Amino acid sequence: MIDYISALPGADALPGFPRRLCILGSTGSIGESALAVAADHPEEISVLALAGGRNVERLAAQAARFRPRFLAVLEEAGAWRLRSMLPSGYAPEILTGPEAYVTLATLEDADVVLSAIVGAAGLPPTLAAAEAGKVVALANKESLVLAGHLIRRACRKSGAVILPVDSEHNALFQSLAGHDGQDVDHLILTASGGPFRDWPAADIPKATAAQALKHPNWSMGAKISIDSATLMNKGLEVIEACQLYGLPQERVTVLVHPQSIVHSLAAYCDGSLLAQMGQPDMRIAIAYCLCYPRRLPLKLEPLDLASLGTLSFSHPRTKDFPCLDLARRAAGAGPGHCVTLNAANEVAVELFLKDRIGFADIARAVSWALDRHPGLDDPDFMTILEVDRATRSDVATYLTGTS
Amino acid sequence: MIDYISALPGADALPGFPRRLCILGSTGSIGESALAVAADHPEEISVLALAGGRNVERLAAQAARFRPRFLAVLEEAGAWRLRSMLPSGYAPEILTGPEAYVTLATLEDADVVLSAIVGAAGLPPTLAAAEAGKVVALANKESLVLAGHLIRRACRKSGAVILPVDSEHNALFQSLAGHDGQDVDHLILTASGGPFRDWPAADIPKATAAQALKHPNWSMGAKISIDSATLMNKGLEVIEACQLYGLPQERVTVLVHPQSIVHSLAAYCDGSLLAQMGQPDMRIAIAYCLCYPRRLPLKLEPLDLASLGTLSFSHPRTKDFPCLDLARRAAGAGPGHCVTLNAANEVAVELFLKDRIGFADIARAVSWALDRHPGLDDPDFMTILEVDRATRSDVATYLTGTS
Repeated sequence: MIDYISALPGADALPGFPRRLCILGSTGSIGESALAVAADHPEEISVLALAGGRNVERLAAQAARFRPRFLAVLEEAGAWRLRSMLPSGYAPEILTGPEAYVTLATLEDADVVLSAIVGAAGLPPTLAAAEAGKVVALANKESLVLAGHLIRRACRKSGAVILPVDSEHNALFQSLAGHDGQDVDHLILTASGGPFRDWPAADIPKATAAQALKHPNWSMGAKISIDSATLMNKGLEVIEACQLYGLPQERVTVLVHPQSIVHSLAAYCDGSLLAQMGQPDMRIAIAYCLCYPRRLPLKLEPLDLASLGTLSFSHPRTKDFPCLDLARRAAGAGPGHCVTLNAANEVAVELFLKDRIGFADIARAVSWALDRHPGLDDPDFMTILEVDRATRSDVATYLTGTS
Repeated sequence: MIDYISALPGADALPGFPRRLCILGSTGSIGESALAVAADHPEEISVLALAGGRNVERLAAQAARFRPRFLAVLEEAGAWRLRSMLPSGYAPEILTGPEAYVTLATLEDADVVLSAIVGAAGLPPTLAAAEAGKVVALANKESLVLAGHLIRRACRKSGAVILPVDSEHNALFQSLAGHDGQDVDHLILTASGGPFRDWPAADIPKATAAQALKHPNWSMGAKISIDSATLMNKGLEVIEACQLYGLPQERVTVLVHPQSIVHSLAAYCDGSLLAQMGQPDMRIAIAYCLCYPRRLPLKLEPLDLASLGTLSFSHPRTKDFPCLDLARRAAGAGPGHCVTLNAANEVAVELFLKDRIGFADIARAVSWALDRHPGLDDPDFMTILEVDRATRSDVATYLTGTS
């Protein structure tokens, strides 16, 4: 029984076209893909605001191309550099700091907010957009992992619409459309299995960051590439699916599918599986969310299953990649444990990327943090931030001896 | 752009439960599966009428089990035998002859008519059910092949609802639900490839009926097993899909998929493929149609893609199995050619089953008949029957020297 996180109004009750788009995290992989879609479809998408974190050069180039009225960067110094890089005659409003993201997420003129920041930093603006009743194209999975219950509540109150950008959750969304949520038996998330999928169990703990960053199918950021290698990405996605679709974790299964063509499947009580497939190209899911329910004719290489030949499937190696079951454990234990899981993982991944800890230390640190967490029933926003901060500090100390 | 053959009202405008079911062709493979579903779900389905052709013993057993108020057989003598086999105290109305099928198809009390007769004989009662505004669960593909345009017209007039039972078309139906038909680029029918899929080209013409009757995945009747071996079944399904979804034949492609797990796919303009998968068990599609849009919890072995391991896909061998392209040729040429194609094929398959002609003669006869047919723009029912009859006679003479 699906209980979707937000209302899903028909096309008539959704914003018209072109939709005015605000991108939070425009210089990342999702943001860049979204702008590629916007560039090809000016009649459907106009870019109103771009927030680009610390990559000021990239943001300046994007701004020069799309001329949004609003820009945001994290630091004051970045704002000055950004201004100096913009073409003459173009003078957008430039905001700075984390609160700038919240301002952009709630701009009155914004029809759709693409939340594409990586990590827990994405939560405040996402929640603000939900509270402001926006259509939120959600790529920041941490928002759901940390505060799915708050986003659900905000959507109920404001009428905000959440559309999942993550390819798996987008596939589920497409596979559930037009079918009665009461008839759903379970959801099946596909997983590439990551770069170490076929490694002998004994070698996996010796994996390096450089090896983990070579993802076989998707071109992604560094943090998510490591999460993909540990299967924590899939674990976070299990939690995300539970939050989006209102299901317990037992009803969200994981299926390893190395080709990343079947993006996920919904299993119904009559034995039917509905699946969405496509090239592993994020533009499909992004465009689907930005113009929902209208589909854009994207210029992608057509997917020819006959040329591909075979699709393969296997069970995940949960023993060799313990992060998936750690995420299930957190999902079953409640929202406080999910915050702890995510914070511990972010700290550990950062240290792993700096070659300061080993691959197996990531799961070890997350498990340690979950063991220590007392549990929280219905944490509010401030409590979530506090648990997040405390866990980061504790895990950093645990892993490095200094916080 | 999908233009579905009939209206598709919401659950509120469809018959309530239990639905009173009339099965035309209850002793065939589809009919038996439908009764298996009905037996497990008495609260959703009550059996009102069964028409069983010539297999009187089987029909008597079904009638004794389900006690429908109406029965039909083809011959008067069969009716007498049937009556003598029924349990005492149960006295249904027994009708005879082809017109009995039309009577049952239009019974005032029938909520859903399952049209599961094989061959052109299914057309008159199917058309009658459409004219009477019934919900028609359509397994008789010849109705659409011969007279899709008449059924479409009847549905528009009466408000009848057509639900496709063929697993491929049912999969398309499920993959199109909830998505805008304007965004559909093309439809992809999957095909097992039949028992001779991997045979060397030189051996195929030597195939015997006994070899063709061993279908790898589906348990089916004799006629459809031969059609599966020649790929004519897929050809007829291309025509059927064109009629159901209002598309030209170029937009219905065929993909060989030996495992018969992905039942078919809808390809959208954004590169998404939506697919329905499941065990190769007709009960899924049948139950979906009988209780649409409600899904029944069927007691099937769950489909575990990980245990299955791989799904494979390839292009059809159209040169070695010419019937698929013959069907495309007929679909492009118009309804008269489709009637000719089907009639020629039925006669040829019957002779092949009796070992009176070879495997390659089936395509040869169909091609010969298509060459001779002058074409018809908008044939009415009587014209269709006349073309059907004349083609059968001509093809029989052509193949055997006697009509």
